Amino acid sequence: MKISELVDLFEKTAFNAKRLSIAAKIYEEMIKNNAFVFFTLAGAMIPAGMRNVISDMIKNDFIHCLVTTGANVVHEICESLGFKHISGVPEVDDVELSKKGISRIYDVFIEQKAFEGLEEFISGILKELNGTFGSYEFLQEVGKRINDKNSFLRVSYERGIPIFCPTLHDSIIGLHITIYSNIVIDYKRDISKLLDLCFQKKKFGIVIIGGGVPKNFTLQSMLLAEGFDYAIQITTDLPEWGGLSGATLDEAKSWCKLKPNAKYMTVYCDATIALPLIYAYLLDKLK
Amino acid sequence: MKISELVDLFEKTAFNAKRLSIAAKIYEEMIKNNAFVFFTLAGAMIPAGMRNVISDMIKNDFIHCLVTTGANVVHEICESLGFKHISGVPEVDDVELSKKGISRIYDVFIEQKAFEGLEEFISGILKELNGTFGSYEFLQEVGKRINDKNSFLRVSYERGIPIFCPTLHDSIIGLHITIYSNIVIDYKRDISKLLDLCFQKKKFGIVIIGGGVPKNFTLQSMLLAEGFDYAIQITTDLPEWGGLSGATLDEAKSWCKLKPNAKYMTVYCDATIALPLIYAYLLDKLK
Amino acid sequence: MKISELVDLFEKTAFNAKRLSIAAKIYEEMIKNNAFVFFTLAGAMIPAGMRNVISDMIKNDFIHCLVTTGANVVHEICESLGFKHISGVPEVDDVELSKKGISRIYDVFIEQKAFEGLEEFISGILKELNGTFGSYEFLQEVGKRINDKNSFLRVSYERGIPIFCPTLHDSIIGLHITIYSNIVIDYKRDISKLLDLCFQKKKFGIVIIGGGVPKNFTLQSMLLAEGFDYAIQITTDLPEWGGLSGATLDEAKSWCKLKPNAKYMTVYCDATIALPLIYAYLLDKLK
Amino acid sequence: MKISELVDLFEKTAFNAKRLSIAAKIYEEMIKNNAFVFFTLAGAMIPAGMRNVISDMIKNDFIHCLVTTGANVVHEICESLGFKHISGVPEVDDVELSKKGISRIYDVFIEQKAFEGLEEFISGILKELNGTFGSYEFLQEVGKRINDKNSFLRVSYERGIPIFCPTLHDSIIGLHITIYSNIVIDYKRDISKLLDLCFQKKKFGIVIIGGGVPKNFTLQSMLLAEGFDYAIQITTDLPEWGGLSGATLDEAKSWCKLKPNAKYMTVYCDATIALPLIYAYLLDKLK
Repeated sequence: MKISELVDLFEKTAFNAKRLSIAAKIYEEMIKNNAFVFFTLAGAMIPAGMRNVISDMIKNDFIHCLVTTGANVVHEICESLGFKHISGVPEVDDVELSKKGISRIYDVFIEQKAFEGLEEFISGILKELNGTFGSYEFLQEVGKRINDKNSFLRVSYERGIPIFCPTLHDSIIGLHITIYSNIVIDYKRDISKLLDLCFQKKKFGIVIIGGGVPKNFTLQSMLLAEGFDYAIQITTDLPEWGGLSGATLDEAKSWCKLKPNAKYMTVYCDATIALPLIYAYLLDKLK
Repeated sequence: MKISELVDLFEKTAFNAKRLSIAAKIYEEMIKNNAFVFFTLAGAMIPAGMRNVISDMIKNDFIHCLVTTGANVVHEICESLGFKHISGVPEVDDVELSKKGISRIYDVFIEQKAFEGLEEFISGILKELNGTFGSYEFLQEVGKRINDKNSFLRVSYERGIPIFCPTLHDSIIGLHITIYSNIVIDYKRDISKLLDLCFQKKKFGIVIIGGGVPKNFTLQSMLLAEGFDYAIQITTDLPEWGGLSGATLDEAKSWCKLKPNAKYMTVYCDATIALPLIYAYLLDKLK
Repeated sequence: MKISELVDLFEKTAFNAKRLSIAAKIYEEMIKNNAFVFFTLAGAMIPAGMRNVISDMIKNDFIHCLVTTGANVVHEICESLGFKHISGVPEVDDVELSKKGISRIYDVFIEQKAFEGLEEFISGILKELNGTFGSYEFLQEVGKRINDKNSFLRVSYERGIPIFCPTLHDSIIGLHITIYSNIVIDYKRDISKLLDLCFQKKKFGIVIIGGGVPKNFTLQSMLLAEGFDYAIQITTDLPEWGGLSGATLDEAKSWCKLKPNAKYMTVYCDATIALPLIYAYLLDKLK
Repeated sequence: MKISELVDLFEKTAFNAKRLSIAAKIYEEMIKNNAFVFFTLAGAMIPAGMRNVISDMIKNDFIHCLVTTGANVVHEICESLGFKHISGVPEVDDVELSKKGISRIYDVFIEQKAFEGLEEFISGILKELNGTFGSYEFLQEVGKRINDKNSFLRVSYERGIPIFCPTLHDSIIGLHITIYSNIVIDYKRDISKLLDLCFQKKKFGIVIIGGGVPKNFTLQSMLLAEGFDYAIQITTDLPEWGGLSGATLDEAKSWCKLKPNAKYMTVYCDATIALPLIYAYLLDKLK
């Protein structure tokens, strides 16, 4: 059975399988209707193996602007430099791991030497740069210097897709910038650029993977514009806890971040499962 | 892309996609090694559209014994009698629904007349029966009288697959039995039959969908036997809350319900998504 | 600061602190208005140290009928016999534990010898009994033979408070009954007794701790009666997963299990925290 | 019963009540041992009514450095200016709300005019400022201009407690700064200041409320220092989902963010419940 057939069947079920099917169809409609798609990617999706999914989605024109975290940028560059994430288990002695120079992200291990490689790479770039950058401008400089066709920083650079990282300083790269450079990351530039994107003569879609700052930073840019026409969200946080990452897309309508008649759906599922399913669905239906 | 290819790729990711991949492979190994598979099905999976998955898994010899809830039995029979579950939404006025004779299970609606049809069907069967039954014996009597090739009660009856329902009384059928009959459901008979199954000269596997009584009732039968060789679990409950449905399979080893060297994996995911993926994987790999 | 003062302050906050405050006040109103309170207690609350809370709530007339699980009954009797639950940690080697004769419930340990003591006690009772029992009748026989003023089985026996255990067979006691006796636990008797309680000339309240069969079994008895006037629920399961334990009390209105104008509130919180807070609130306000 | 007595009793229970008791005692030990306490506050705790708890904890010297989100800063200032959060419900028509000029945060409502007041206040401050600021320096300027003894910005300003807001731009204030000013928020200054704090000759504690950027930003500053001696975390996110907010404190040890022999505990609970309990416990024990 093809994945798209299963996702189609999911529409006749209930709970989160049905939600996933509806979300996939809304994403399909975004693309068919030529909407501009903001894609927000939280947390630890790159260590969790979603790197190729993201870069392939960019290559397939399913993502027109990426908003992500410092952690995802850090781990993407580590992989671009040839360092690997190691498949581990969560039940370990973390002090023992640290003695071996291994850091853990749930069931993913990474060696400290990856961060040493990163430091060398980033400090090298920083020596060449001066002045003030939006995070998207700094990441263009990084992407320009990456030589890996699976790097979403590289792919985005080549295709002119902006990547915003509103928490770049909340990562090891933030430490590098503090230690090694005099450049300033001025997020006013990110906000201005994002606002420009929100005023294109287009329909707008947002695809939210996992909440966090990427979700809020992108949604808030619509406070000054018309609101999103389409929105889908994949999260394991839940509305009853009251936090932003689990907040419903209905709630976003009270803030006018979604248009009153927007199409939207939340899927409560680990994105490592739901995102590849939706991506495969789009490939089947649109390519 | 075929589903089995995606599930194979999931093994190289992390978090619950990786868990799902490992669980699928353990299930595959259960079947290849001719283990006897106990399949426990909690809650509302039948209203949620998993009925055909279950009956097809039985037809394909992936389930050798089913342990489920009164709710799943009730809704299975309603569908066997031709009543439909209606795709709804959770954001409704439930008092209005009740006035229209509609009951709700999250985003699934069902008309009260389905339960009237059920009552007529069950009361008719009860008139024909006398004496003491295990739940599995009573459900054989029901399956015998169902005329629907997608009914898992019918399919199980035809194939001699026992279906245990340790919470039959915790359902509308329990009310029917109380009102319309003098038969006694004596779960001592279920326990004895389950114990017999646990003493076959075979390897044993357990597939746990969603926890609850089906999980515990099946696991506890191994207190008197050797323990399971294989175990997989799909749940959205989590161990940190301390309850049975989220309890890890490690914990089951402290009770000797799993063998010390058992292969096992838990997937934290809505089963409406994870179960069809695993079923499709098994079909691809084994048929 | 007194606990009741804090719970009062919670009403001016939001999220689950506010929910907890409202739930406490609804419970207070149940008692003040002389409602008959069904109290449903799932899972592992007794191993988790809630035994004295339950027996004290019965002594203080806050519980008029208890519906609970086999697990809670088993662990209550173990403590009544002098065996202790041991404070442990979840990060252990469960095979090592099993070798030491210790079983684990998340972070609670219990020695196998407690279950041996239980077996001796229960098998002794079973030798004295014959015939058919509702679970509540069997548990009266047990309570009669317990000599511990903190035992909720003993306290309930003395006060004539019925304790229903619709999953008695889903516990080690179920195995004992199967092996050592010819008595039959016939849940038709439980259903009939519960229905009698639902037809008293009173207002009705339900306090749901943790979901599961106790929740559903008690709610379903109102299918044949008028519905509850008050309902509060403490759970860590969430509605978006679609299962019974997380189902909203709104959903229960579509089934007419709650009256259309019922007062109700769900608190999403570990009951080991929320239940003692609510109990202390009731003591402060009502005693 | 006093709250501290209940929290003491919790230690003899299990699950999250026990976790809460241990966490409270670790916090108590931090204060007694004169540790420097970094307090990280995510998400929507201020709209949820925790403002006075935070400002009182600062007054009582339980917080020596606060790291929080743009959202919390925005809503704190709105209250300082006299605007109120309104107790609402989550089941509403959000388009209707938006038409009435009301925005929703789960069950909390706030009128748009609060944000208009905020804009006037912030734009006024921005006119007076020039140059480059760390977020903590900017927030000192704000606190200096607030006239409300319950404002944690004011209290912190008076006491010289630094408040870091690494996501200041991820809030309406970020939009104001972009539109109304030429000042630059340069987080390099925050990182340098945080690092200075991490090199004091003291023991270090971290109290993490809800995860997010405040958690990671504070933990990462210890990558260059010795690691925390004490850590407690209150969260409703769970480790099995793989994200940062649910990541265990064990995992932080693999990164050397906690010392190998650190004392630490995570409480899985809505912080609106757990934080006031812990604060009241500290008051009882230490004041």
